[in-house]
Amino acid sequence: MTTPNTPITVGILGASSYTGCELLRLLSRHDGIQVAFVSSRSYAGTPLSTIFPALRGICDRACITPEDATAAQADCVFSCLPHGVSASYLLPFIERGIRVIDLSADFRLQDAAEYARWYGKDHPAPHLLSTAVYGLVEHFRDRIAGAAIVANPGCYPTGMLLPLLPLAARGGIDTARGPLITDAKSGLSGAGRALKLTSHFVEANESMSAYAAGQRHRHVSEMRRLLGDACAQAGTEMPHFIFTPHLLPVNRGILSTIYVPATIDARTCHHMLEEAYAAQRFIRVRPFGQLPALRDVVYSNYCDIGVTDVPDQDTVIIVSAIDNLTRGASGQAIQNMNCMMGFPEHTALGL
Amino acid sequence: MTTPNTPITVGILGASSYTGCELLRLLSRHDGIQVAFVSSRSYAGTPLSTIFPALRGICDRACITPEDATAAQADCVFSCLPHGVSASYLLPFIERGIRVIDLSADFRLQDAAEYARWYGKDHPAPHLLSTAVYGLVEHFRDRIAGAAIVANPGCYPTGMLLPLLPLAARGGIDTARGPLITDAKSGLSGAGRALKLTSHFVEANESMSAYAAGQRHRHVSEMRRLLGDACAQAGTEMPHFIFTPHLLPVNRGILSTIYVPATIDARTCHHMLEEAYAAQRFIRVRPFGQLPALRDVVYSNYCDIGVTDVPDQDTVIIVSAIDNLTRGASGQAIQNMNCMMGFPEHTALGL
Amino acid sequence: MTTPNTPITVGILGASSYTGCELLRLLSRHDGIQVAFVSSRSYAGTPLSTIFPALRGICDRACITPEDATAAQADCVFSCLPHGVSASYLLPFIERGIRVIDLSADFRLQDAAEYARWYGKDHPAPHLLSTAVYGLVEHFRDRIAGAAIVANPGCYPTGMLLPLLPLAARGGIDTARGPLITDAKSGLSGAGRALKLTSHFVEANESMSAYAAGQRHRHVSEMRRLLGDACAQAGTEMPHFIFTPHLLPVNRGILSTIYVPATIDARTCHHMLEEAYAAQRFIRVRPFGQLPALRDVVYSNYCDIGVTDVPDQDTVIIVSAIDNLTRGASGQAIQNMNCMMGFPEHTALGL
Amino acid sequence: MTTPNTPITVGILGASSYTGCELLRLLSRHDGIQVAFVSSRSYAGTPLSTIFPALRGICDRACITPEDATAAQADCVFSCLPHGVSASYLLPFIERGIRVIDLSADFRLQDAAEYARWYGKDHPAPHLLSTAVYGLVEHFRDRIAGAAIVANPGCYPTGMLLPLLPLAARGGIDTARGPLITDAKSGLSGAGRALKLTSHFVEANESMSAYAAGQRHRHVSEMRRLLGDACAQAGTEMPHFIFTPHLLPVNRGILSTIYVPATIDARTCHHMLEEAYAAQRFIRVRPFGQLPALRDVVYSNYCDIGVTDVPDQDTVIIVSAIDNLTRGASGQAIQNMNCMMGFPEHTALGL
Repeated sequence: MTTPNTPITVGILGASSYTGCELLRLLSRHDGIQVAFVSSRSYAGTPLSTIFPALRGICDRACITPEDATAAQADCVFSCLPHGVSASYLLPFIERGIRVIDLSADFRLQDAAEYARWYGKDHPAPHLLSTAVYGLVEHFRDRIAGAAIVANPGCYPTGMLLPLLPLAARGGIDTARGPLITDAKSGLSGAGRALKLTSHFVEANESMSAYAAGQRHRHVSEMRRLLGDACAQAGTEMPHFIFTPHLLPVNRGILSTIYVPATIDARTCHHMLEEAYAAQRFIRVRPFGQLPALRDVVYSNYCDIGVTDVPDQDTVIIVSAIDNLTRGASGQAIQNMNCMMGFPEHTALGL
Repeated sequence: MTTPNTPITVGILGASSYTGCELLRLLSRHDGIQVAFVSSRSYAGTPLSTIFPALRGICDRACITPEDATAAQADCVFSCLPHGVSASYLLPFIERGIRVIDLSADFRLQDAAEYARWYGKDHPAPHLLSTAVYGLVEHFRDRIAGAAIVANPGCYPTGMLLPLLPLAARGGIDTARGPLITDAKSGLSGAGRALKLTSHFVEANESMSAYAAGQRHRHVSEMRRLLGDACAQAGTEMPHFIFTPHLLPVNRGILSTIYVPATIDARTCHHMLEEAYAAQRFIRVRPFGQLPALRDVVYSNYCDIGVTDVPDQDTVIIVSAIDNLTRGASGQAIQNMNCMMGFPEHTALGL
Repeated sequence: MTTPNTPITVGILGASSYTGCELLRLLSRHDGIQVAFVSSRSYAGTPLSTIFPALRGICDRACITPEDATAAQADCVFSCLPHGVSASYLLPFIERGIRVIDLSADFRLQDAAEYARWYGKDHPAPHLLSTAVYGLVEHFRDRIAGAAIVANPGCYPTGMLLPLLPLAARGGIDTARGPLITDAKSGLSGAGRALKLTSHFVEANESMSAYAAGQRHRHVSEMRRLLGDACAQAGTEMPHFIFTPHLLPVNRGILSTIYVPATIDARTCHHMLEEAYAAQRFIRVRPFGQLPALRDVVYSNYCDIGVTDVPDQDTVIIVSAIDNLTRGASGQAIQNMNCMMGFPEHTALGL
Repeated sequence: MTTPNTPITVGILGASSYTGCELLRLLSRHDGIQVAFVSSRSYAGTPLSTIFPALRGICDRACITPEDATAAQADCVFSCLPHGVSASYLLPFIERGIRVIDLSADFRLQDAAEYARWYGKDHPAPHLLSTAVYGLVEHFRDRIAGAAIVANPGCYPTGMLLPLLPLAARGGIDTARGPLITDAKSGLSGAGRALKLTSHFVEANESMSAYAAGQRHRHVSEMRRLLGDACAQAGTEMPHFIFTPHLLPVNRGILSTIYVPATIDARTCHHMLEEAYAAQRFIRVRPFGQLPALRDVVYSNYCDIGVTDVPDQDTVIIVSAIDNLTRGASGQAIQNMNCMMGFPEHTALGL
């Protein structure tokens, strides 16, 4: 792996979002890149450091409109735009051969009909769906290196798939029994910066609640696709699974408690994960029986994984912890960019 | 039901705990009682309002030692002492015919051998175990009214059993499938006032973690006893169940997300709960599909319950919310006292 | 003091606010009142318990429009409407002889010109300003008892004026030196339920900031009026004072740290406050040198006050703590109602 | 400035503290250093990553005892030991010519008698006090570059002195009037990792309180020394000042609201600060009238400063915001090390 000699240039669409701010925070440590443009429709003309004073002295550049961005030059473009909008704004870049990393869900599904079902609108570029690579670097590194379009994984899927894909691919999940249950708890930054009552401080603070329970969360479609592919490797069906997200009164982090109907015992399961991730810097499998906490991973690109057993039962409990803004979004996006552009994968992703 | 004409007197052992403070907070609204004594070994001689300045003007009485308390007179005694200690200090009162409400776990099990297994010591009064009544008022109201010893339910069992007992007793749980999973999230007051690193602000705040996963929490024994009894009513086995508690960075509240392998569909399940609790003031079953949040119940004696389904699957999702200090401890203890002493059950338990 | 034999009826305008919810929470414990109506323009037709599920079973009544409320009957009407709107909606009640308690700022100033300056519009009923009584019960109890209109004090003024009025009236403040500084920290519920970025969870949580520094907060006008009146009693000028509010990442509470250029030493100052409030149940002056914390007063109608000195300096430090929703708004409003309607002043205001 | 070609080696005494953990977090990004040893008496033998799982894969080295550390080799040693202990353990390194950065208060005062008065014990190496350099880099950069001992500034003094030193040195503070008041609010990590009731989650969360009010905080001595020196440059007396620290329920950050009796108006004051810090990367003076929030600086080495006026009064309000663990401790310590060892000053201190 060689590092480019001259800095590459990057553009960011939808920079006034929390994921945009996090991208800039991390990119400020990256010696190999230069920011070519940041765009935001609602804040066009406003310096990004006025929107996020934390970025003063780091990115004082004014936001341009997404339309103006279209004509701009860059080696790589990140989109922090919402799903249903993102693909349309990325198309002109893709057509010009500029490599893109989409933090929205627009390129995460491969089936246009399923996209329409979940997102309530037709996909603007269905012909591109099959070329997009799912950006879970530890699993698809080689394809990402050469990809024109990387679909950056959703935050919940990242926390769920990292521990489950190795098990599924090795036949460790008993798909005849079921269901496999993921009870996930996410900090409020996952709900974005748009104002709504559920993100109002007094409503969220000192409270907790489940939402979109019973497979009603859009990330279910993405989980199903990836988990299904992994099961197919093992020649098994996809397990029935249940995903219940909860709002947790913290700024950052997703803790996923996963109940796996396993074909193997918990220690074998733990060993499988240790083996699968032994060479992966950003995945830390804990000693058997030790479970991670959010404080271990916030403001980092790590995914920490713990495994424990339930005496006399064949369910294995796995807990994963990530920072939803870093590993679940912008950190992972930079990890993807490093992989695409030939930088060492961990560049700018230290603690 | 008649209200006593002269105030009854109550004593509180272990008053320097959070549950002791909460008892005093609620009792200060109760016109029918007078506090006879408050005890605390570590704070003997110190006014309770010095320990908890919130109680200034409400309970300025100095704590006495538990030994001195033994000789004191009262109509009813609450113990907020820790398990393994509580029963010993309650014995002298019980022997004198004073009715007691034990907030510890010491009278919650009926089998002395199981007590010894979970709590690592012999029970000091095994002959009394069978006379103690489990203080889940909505289910055992009649027996509580005449009880000499009430075992106040644990906080986690309260949140889990209130939604599950009616289903178990009516055969709604499919005990052949399994497991039944309770993923519970508790505020930090549930960990008590004793100093430990996991309750240290910087460790707990902006974090979350699972602990005692895989049936290692002592409340499992209590859940098993009550759930088993209810299943026996329906002529079924007890289901395999998994209980995973989590530390949640809030002061108060337990949210339990329960995944039930059901013999009936979710709407029938919901209807069963509505019917079971229609006349119970402190249990609020939400309209189908609406799930409660902790903010709906904190500082109250309510248990709010929501039920939803998972399309194409036979798992029913139930979410219950309680305040662990009120409904999960001191509020429920007062509800028990009201029931034992002939006060209207909701006295002092308004919002 | 006699308690009415039949319940009095109350109406609440603007019930969908946090202060509306808090009023209902407290009124649910009040045996002497019945709710006649609750109004909300944006939620007309919606049960209050749908807006605030915490109120299920307590106030399931549907909101009516403010216009429909105008024709409704009640013995006493609370307005939780915003300033600039509140007075107009209270006028029809006042004209019908119904006693009103206005939680907005609309009747807190006596000078229509000053109202216009601070609130940017003409007062709708300037002729009534002189008849409204400022509802700081411990200071104006007699006038409140007979008042037609009570202007419920602002949250910040309550926390600042309770410790300062006795000192000002007794000449304890050195108005020649200055300034008197109040550095106040308020929980987010003080900012209301309307959505705005500064109340967005991720922006407020784990942060803190000053706002409206340098006398730009509207409560300054109200502080100036009351503090000026008290100084006039002592024959002194009003001191220069500086008020700096801060947003504190908690739901409830205002902590005011007050730096007083005093004519007397700190112990004399402390003694003055002890004497002034000895007979006042809801004001708790701490022993000299002990300072209150928010946890001591949240969910209560207390104002806790601590006094300490600065060695070798003639500045006295006073810290006051209140719950902004209870003592700073709805609890105080009920204390006013109790006073107006002949209930014992503390009714429904236990912990 | 030249960067060393081979990595320098550093040792950390007291590594099991929050400041120790933060040092490791930041050093992990520093290409020019290698960790030679980490010590901790209570965790001797335990890998640092077991104490702080966030450091897994970053510092898995086991802690050695402070005594064993004494014999170890390093180019530079950081001490995170508590005051009163730190100097003794640093002495052997100093005697061997190893450069040290002391994060405790042990080398911050120059007068051994004053040290004894504030810290209640004699200083172990009074002869070294005059050689230690106060590590406020923006003010003492040249002396730090050549220092053998750097006294890393306290967190509160950092937040107070950065805005005040330039004003004091230029005669901007009216020392005849007074007092100058600093009302400071600190997150809980400032209270350290040792267990105590005031840092217990339930006590601190949803609360706030002042402590050590009235000049009783030890940092007052340090503030007095530095502020006095700056005033001496302007030929003025030191102003009377009052410092009131508060506990704020957040993990990180200190917000200082400073009320300055000024000889100049607020805009001149603002201009003075802009000028003083124009070339200083880590000090960000906001546009006049804009005040910083903690969210702007957490997890960074910045000190953000805002200035505003009070109409018709000659008090200037200054608000500064820092992260107490980064800028107020470990980040500043690394800034000092960079300065001492010839690294670019901002190395490893990006966002």
